[in-house]
Amino acid sequence: MWHNLNGGGLGLDVRTFSVGRNFLVRVEHDSDFVVFLTSVAREQGIAAATFTAVGALKEAKLGFYDQERHVYVATLLAGPQEIASCVGNVSIKEGAPFVHAHAVLADRLGVVRAGHLLAGRVFAAEVHLVELVGEKVERKNDAVTGLSLWAI
Amino acid sequence: MWHNLNGGGLGLDVRTFSVGRNFLVRVEHDSDFVVFLTSVAREQGIAAATFTAVGALKEAKLGFYDQERHVYVATLLAGPQEIASCVGNVSIKEGAPFVHAHAVLADRLGVVRAGHLLAGRVFAAEVHLVELVGEKVERKNDAVTGLSLWAI
Amino acid sequence: MWHNLNGGGLGLDVRTFSVGRNFLVRVEHDSDFVVFLTSVAREQGIAAATFTAVGALKEAKLGFYDQERHVYVATLLAGPQEIASCVGNVSIKEGAPFVHAHAVLADRLGVVRAGHLLAGRVFAAEVHLVELVGEKVERKNDAVTGLSLWAI
Repeated sequence: MWHNLNGGGLGLDVRTFSVGRNFLVRVEHDSDFVVFLTSVAREQGIAAATFTAVGALKEAKLGFYDQERHVYVATLLAGPQEIASCVGNVSIKEGAPFVHAHAVLADRLGVVRAGHLLAGRVFAAEVHLVELVGEKVERKNDAVTGLSLWAI
Repeated sequence: MWHNLNGGGLGLDVRTFSVGRNFLVRVEHDSDFVVFLTSVAREQGIAAATFTAVGALKEAKLGFYDQERHVYVATLLAGPQEIASCVGNVSIKEGAPFVHAHAVLADRLGVVRAGHLLAGRVFAAEVHLVELVGEKVERKNDAVTGLSLWAI
Repeated sequence: MWHNLNGGGLGLDVRTFSVGRNFLVRVEHDSDFVVFLTSVAREQGIAAATFTAVGALKEAKLGFYDQERHVYVATLLAGPQEIASCVGNVSIKEGAPFVHAHAVLADRLGVVRAGHLLAGRVFAAEVHLVELVGEKVERKNDAVTGLSLWAI
C-alpha cells in the first residue's frame, strides 16, 4: 500500500521497499537501450527497479512531453552521443515490466540534448539496476497529466 | 566518525553506512519538488539518504554557486521542463532533514539547463530515495567554500 | 559468471550482485575528482561499485569518444562548473580499481556541457558510492568499440 502521509487527498505518496538483486548490465552493441533493458527485466522477472547508466549511443530519439496537449514530441539525434547521464526505473504497465528512462546526451560538437529516452542504438552502455522488493508498482493512466503514472 | 584515509589534514573523507528503507515517491502534481521531498524526509524520520529522480516540471529555479563571491545566482525557467536527470541527498542541517538536489532540465525547444535545483513546480516526478543508516550526517558551514558541507 | 540470457552469441549480459558497504564521500577541495575517488576505492578495497555525485568543480576536462576513430576528444572547461549530474562506476582494470565517471556540468552563463569526466578539480563534491559484492568485474579491451569494457 502507498502511504499517504497527509491523509486522504493530499500528496506525500510514498511506498517502502527492500533492496533485491543488484544487476550490472552490459548492453549489447547495436541493440536498442530501452528494448534491451526491458528484455532483461522480463527475463529476470523484475517487477520494480531503478537504474543509472553511462555509455554512448550511435543515435537516439528523445521525447519532450507537451504538458498541455498531452503528447510526446520526439527529436531524432542522428549521430554518436555520449550518455552523460541516464536515470530511470522499471515498473509494471499492462501486466509486464516497463522501462522508463531519461537521459542527457552530448554530441561531438559539445551540443547537449536531454529528455525522455524513447530509443537509443547502443555503442556501449553500463547499467546498474537495483531491484526493489515489495508491493507491485503498477502504472495507470492519470487524467490530470495524461501520463501513465505509478498508481496509488 | 568520518575516516580520514590519509591521516590528519588530508582528504579521503568517507563514512560507511548500511542501506535502510528504500522509498519510491510519486511527487504530488503542482507541489514544489524540494519542499515535497523535504516533507517526506521529515515525516519518515530520514536522517541520511540519497536519491535519483525523473519526471517533468511546470517551471523551475536553478542555482549556480559563485565560487568567488560565495552566493547563489538563480535563474528562473518559466515554462515546462523535462527532468532529464536529478541526483541529490538528504542530510541534517540545523537539526532537521535537508534536501540537496541538482537537476538537468530540457525545455520544448531542446534547450538544456542544469544546476542546483532551488525550486521546481512538479508536473510529475518519480523518485527513488535510499535511506543510509549509520552516524548522523550533519551540514556545517565551511569557510573555504562558503557552503554548508557534510561535517567531518 | 555473466548470464547470457539469450544463450550463446546474443546479448542480455547481466551479472548479479549483493549490496556491500555504502559510502558517503566528501571529496577534498582542490583534489581531482577521478583521482580522489580512485584513491577511495583502492584504500577501501572496493572491487565493484557504482556512484552518483553532485557538487561543483573549479575546472574540468570532458571527453567525447570518437566511435569511428576510437579515440577520446577532450574539451577543457576552464572555469567554475556546477556538477548537475555525475554517474559512474568502479571496476577492475589491469588489476586495480578503475573509476569510470560521466558528468553534466553547467557554467555561470548557463552553458551546459556533458560527457566522460576525464578530470575535474573539485570545489565541493558529495558522492554516494555503493559497493557491489559478487564476482570480479574486470575491464578488457573490446575490439568492436575500442573501449575497455566489462569482460564477459
